Amino acid sequence: MADKKPAFTIDKVNPHVVEAKYAVRGELAVKSEQYRSMLEKGEGKNLPFDTVISANIGNPQQLDQKPITFFRQVLSILENPDLLQAPDKLEQFFGYKPDVVTRAQELLKAVKSVGAYSQSQGAPLIRQSVANFIGKRDGYPADASSIFLCGGASSGVNTLLNCICSGPKTGILVPIPQYPLYTATLSLLNAQMVPYYLNEENNWSTSVDDMKKALQKARSDGIDVRAVVVINPGNPTGGSLSEADIQSVVKLATHEGLIIMADEVYQTNIFAGQFSSFKKVLRKMQSDSPREYASTQLASLHSVSKGMIGECGHRGGYFELVGFDEQVTAQIYKFISIMLCPPVIGQCMVEVMVNPPAPGSPSYELYRKEYDGIFNSLHDRANALYKAFEAMEGVSCRVPQGSMYLFPTVKLPQKAIEAAKKEGRAPDEFYCLRLLDATGVCIVPGSGFGQKEGTFHFRTTFLAPGTEWVGRITEFHKKFMDEFR
Amino acid sequence: MADKKPAFTIDKVNPHVVEAKYAVRGELAVKSEQYRSMLEKGEGKNLPFDTVISANIGNPQQLDQKPITFFRQVLSILENPDLLQAPDKLEQFFGYKPDVVTRAQELLKAVKSVGAYSQSQGAPLIRQSVANFIGKRDGYPADASSIFLCGGASSGVNTLLNCICSGPKTGILVPIPQYPLYTATLSLLNAQMVPYYLNEENNWSTSVDDMKKALQKARSDGIDVRAVVVINPGNPTGGSLSEADIQSVVKLATHEGLIIMADEVYQTNIFAGQFSSFKKVLRKMQSDSPREYASTQLASLHSVSKGMIGECGHRGGYFELVGFDEQVTAQIYKFISIMLCPPVIGQCMVEVMVNPPAPGSPSYELYRKEYDGIFNSLHDRANALYKAFEAMEGVSCRVPQGSMYLFPTVKLPQKAIEAAKKEGRAPDEFYCLRLLDATGVCIVPGSGFGQKEGTFHFRTTFLAPGTEWVGRITEFHKKFMDEFR
Repeated sequence: MADKKPAFTIDKVNPHVVEAKYAVRGELAVKSEQYRSMLEKGEGKNLPFDTVISANIGNPQQLDQKPITFFRQVLSILENPDLLQAPDKLEQFFGYKPDVVTRAQELLKAVKSVGAYSQSQGAPLIRQSVANFIGKRDGYPADASSIFLCGGASSGVNTLLNCICSGPKTGILVPIPQYPLYTATLSLLNAQMVPYYLNEENNWSTSVDDMKKALQKARSDGIDVRAVVVINPGNPTGGSLSEADIQSVVKLATHEGLIIMADEVYQTNIFAGQFSSFKKVLRKMQSDSPREYASTQLASLHSVSKGMIGECGHRGGYFELVGFDEQVTAQIYKFISIMLCPPVIGQCMVEVMVNPPAPGSPSYELYRKEYDGIFNSLHDRANALYKAFEAMEGVSCRVPQGSMYLFPTVKLPQKAIEAAKKEGRAPDEFYCLRLLDATGVCIVPGSGFGQKEGTFHFRTTFLAPGTEWVGRITEFHKKFMDEFR
Repeated sequence: MADKKPAFTIDKVNPHVVEAKYAVRGELAVKSEQYRSMLEKGEGKNLPFDTVISANIGNPQQLDQKPITFFRQVLSILENPDLLQAPDKLEQFFGYKPDVVTRAQELLKAVKSVGAYSQSQGAPLIRQSVANFIGKRDGYPADASSIFLCGGASSGVNTLLNCICSGPKTGILVPIPQYPLYTATLSLLNAQMVPYYLNEENNWSTSVDDMKKALQKARSDGIDVRAVVVINPGNPTGGSLSEADIQSVVKLATHEGLIIMADEVYQTNIFAGQFSSFKKVLRKMQSDSPREYASTQLASLHSVSKGMIGECGHRGGYFELVGFDEQVTAQIYKFISIMLCPPVIGQCMVEVMVNPPAPGSPSYELYRKEYDGIFNSLHDRANALYKAFEAMEGVSCRVPQGSMYLFPTVKLPQKAIEAAKKEGRAPDEFYCLRLLDATGVCIVPGSGFGQKEGTFHFRTTFLAPGTEWVGRITEFHKKFMDEFR
């Protein structure tokens, strides 16, 4: 018998999976992990750096950010409720204050065990906590039955796009640059990404005129555009929208019959001005003009992965639905029920995030200190990085406003562009690969997020501790420009 | 201005989502939750029962199964590594043995923090642990690079079907009855479920002749059948396949160029005979006839949700790929990377499951006692339930062999079938709804899993504590038969 070849080969793989692109964890990330592994095994003696800096992904706790003590104390009890047998010893030897114990007891009552499936939508008490948080944040009440807990905001976006998209004629307005989760998911669903460009000159704000143009063009191509995605504060841009910008988007979406998908996972990472939620702005507009905004549909997302929490590995998040009827909500519920429920300990992390120790409670002081410490340190590093970029030849960067990223633009010399072409790479990818090979600093090329034709950017987080690595970028950049100028 | 209606209504929802069916968490489950909530609020005084019994879903810890102590002690330290500051106090006051502390330290070293994203495929050390476990289980080595950790086996099935299916001409052989995850996911992907019937008379075994017939029919309809799903031990059937049955499936799949998707999440829930993994059987066949089975492709799944672990809420699991080339594996990797990584604490739960305390280690004795206690109690309840079913008029049930379910067949009187029709319900759904309304016991009608035309079944778990609820079913059944005979 002749040797048979396996039947399932690359030509059989779902073409929509093959088409999907996800640069954040792409070639550069894989290569950086190989470098890290070489260094750990002592095989990296010939490398021109001694550490790898993962500035490609917003993963704070991989970069030495310490978790918030209260959160983790509560979760440790949820994992092992036997710890409740001696709360006095927990306090005496491990610093667990009484409010830690109380919170753990409440959550255990709500979920019974973190090892049990919860309702697919999430445990009712936790959804109520989220509703209370939103009510307090916005000054307008929220309804627990409209809250869906999910395994990180990524899973929420996946749910929403799966339910909204009905094949190749469905379109979704997506900002460019964008977080590639959106384009990748639309590829998988064989739906259309309808790009609208953010306004770099105006700190990466939304331009409703651009949105309208993109919408009209897509419609004239026969695309049924159903939703507009807004990421605020912006990823990868670091921009933060004004209330007026948000109003314009709500107005446009309402008049054009578009669902607003507000990705607000960076809502506490704000360094300039104040965060306004889409929900709050919408409720205000509805209270001013009830009939005009009666039909608006909004889905807003939040997560435990970002902010000062940075609990990415716990995969916790939620989305809130506004203006969706019962029939649609029932379909969304059915969709998520196929995957049973989001991780229950992640749901509990959502609860402590939205309901942290209140002023005056035993754990408050430490919580405040840790929270502010992380905030200030992020802010300082953002500014240091910003200044370094502004001082580099051909690089220009917007003032840090929010999120965990800077997205500078870099004018690459013609010779570099040609050298990239020879390697069959995008010029910004070429730049980032050179940076990684020379310094061990891993960042993501702008082409992974989308950018205006002929412009080049890169995204870097400002999470890595210290500032030594910023110096590595500065030095590399100088040499790169000298080589290709 | 006239009131505008929201644009996104049920007619716009992705039709593949609307088509998908998922009975395990459907109408009956929702109604049972309403009853439970009424009873909790003291509003259930007119109900003919005082507790709701959720026998519809394999959720052990919702039904008072206690978690394994060693697992949860380790996880509590992972959530709060500050506990490591005083291991002696942990032992003195909370019974943490030294091997708990050592394991927690090893896992923390491997993941750095459970709040950090891991590699999308899962932390390398944990994948190596899984590979060691498989090697020991099967007597054939496994490779960590072929292991993908995932958020429960459901998420693994989702990944595999997304990559394998390329639209409406792709078909997947699925056993009937089946766990509805498979049909629901195929609906979402707009791919074809190609049913093959399990052999109820022979303890729900697979019949390769039936598979072949189903395959030939689908191919003659122009369907590109790419994989065959086998659930062993069976859900909902409780059957357990012999090595000879598995060999026949491997042979057929290899000769027909089908990927084998082996859902083996109940591999430790075995009450008769011994579990044989597809991997082991395949390796044996490959060692006997290397050329004949060189091309076989297998993906096998396991989970922390079932077995004696029952840690559903932690959403942990893995799949192992055998015979997939690098290009295909890279696409699977990209697909999962879009969702970043499975829950890290769930990954750690996988690690302790596959690497429990070894004989002689400090935590071993308690672990063994807890494990055996759960096993014996499940076995006892399975037998009690089986005996009760066998004694009921018109009900017949296979001897419990494996998994957490019994799937008896019930001969419904013609009058009951007509009464069901009047309500627009399937007869078995009518029966289960009546049971719920009369007794508070929630089970799932066979139509939710698929069954031969004209036969009626229901699936019940045997997880609920005690046997009082079994009496409720017996009593209801007698009255039901009297009413409709």
